[in-house]
Amino acid sequence: MSKHKPFLLVFSAPSGCGKTTLLNKLREKFPGIGFSVSHTTRPRRRGEVDGVDYHFVDQDKFKQMRDAGLFVESATVHLNSYGTTFAAIDTLLAAGNDVILDIDVQGMRRLQAANHYDFVSIFIMPPGLDELSSRLRLRDTDSEQVIKQRLANAVAEIKAAPLYDYNVVNDDLENAFTELSAIITAERLRTSRNIENFS
Amino acid sequence: MSKHKPFLLVFSAPSGCGKTTLLNKLREKFPGIGFSVSHTTRPRRRGEVDGVDYHFVDQDKFKQMRDAGLFVESATVHLNSYGTTFAAIDTLLAAGNDVILDIDVQGMRRLQAANHYDFVSIFIMPPGLDELSSRLRLRDTDSEQVIKQRLANAVAEIKAAPLYDYNVVNDDLENAFTELSAIITAERLRTSRNIENFS
Repeated sequence: MSKHKPFLLVFSAPSGCGKTTLLNKLREKFPGIGFSVSHTTRPRRRGEVDGVDYHFVDQDKFKQMRDAGLFVESATVHLNSYGTTFAAIDTLLAAGNDVILDIDVQGMRRLQAANHYDFVSIFIMPPGLDELSSRLRLRDTDSEQVIKQRLANAVAEIKAAPLYDYNVVNDDLENAFTELSAIITAERLRTSRNIENFS
Repeated sequence: MSKHKPFLLVFSAPSGCGKTTLLNKLREKFPGIGFSVSHTTRPRRRGEVDGVDYHFVDQDKFKQMRDAGLFVESATVHLNSYGTTFAAIDTLLAAGNDVILDIDVQGMRRLQAANHYDFVSIFIMPPGLDELSSRLRLRDTDSEQVIKQRLANAVAEIKAAPLYDYNVVNDDLENAFTELSAIITAERLRTSRNIENFS
């Protein structure tokens, strides 16, 4: 197939659903996928690199960017703000890359409302709340209070799963990875993204 | 993922694009896919089984069924008539199977117009007309005149490719099979076909 018109792949998942692991595997498998780097006010975690994992900015800078209308979507979660700039996305699309956006439910709603980009949305579901609770505790990066809040948020976020184009349950990592890969392969074959190949 | 709501997979392709080979491979790979058996007035080919490959009927019987409104879609191609009954599809869907419909462009247009079923449409493209011409000659089942007509039909049919949800070029059988498999896997994960799993 000739080169398709690049599009956005929006991924959301409650914390602890294995989203980061899955997205890293997709990045390895699919050439021509770019990851848009979000801006955030949350503290940098061990191992995270500024400009790679996020652009880490302070509250003032973030507010200034938001007021200037630079964000496609921005949202505040767990007291921290996250935002994706038009510029971050446009640069990747212009280079012919599909763009993975790792955003939360609020972010997806705003992207949907903005109606600016061709995008496909995927919600990654936990196999169940007990399992999710165990995973968050195993991760051992968060306090018990934060874990409780993440679980409460997960329950709220899962209610938004029907808004997404696809739902993939991460009950088995390899299986979920196969399913996500199939979605990307299929969406690249959509006629609407290849119409110029027919002329 | 729990069981999805079954749907129709509509495949069209000009003769000689490898559609039959691809559909047989899909049938092997995917459990829970049914093939709806069409009615046709065309003569039975060597190896074809009545009730399995087609229901072979005469012109009178076909016309009578069409007038009774039994067909979801029916079309006349190369002087022969083909039709798919509601009954053939409904039986498979009721058993929880997705249903593959192997129909031509006319049939797809009628299915679309009927607006009765949830379906996904896929057009299989030849790599090019020279290649298609060689394939039709290699197959050695048709006269030169029939081959010429099939090529002329192919040119006309390819113009309808943009009407389909997906386009898959069969330039390499394994590659095309992987792409078709991805489409089926992805479409089964669509939220709209799994919405009852969220309640």
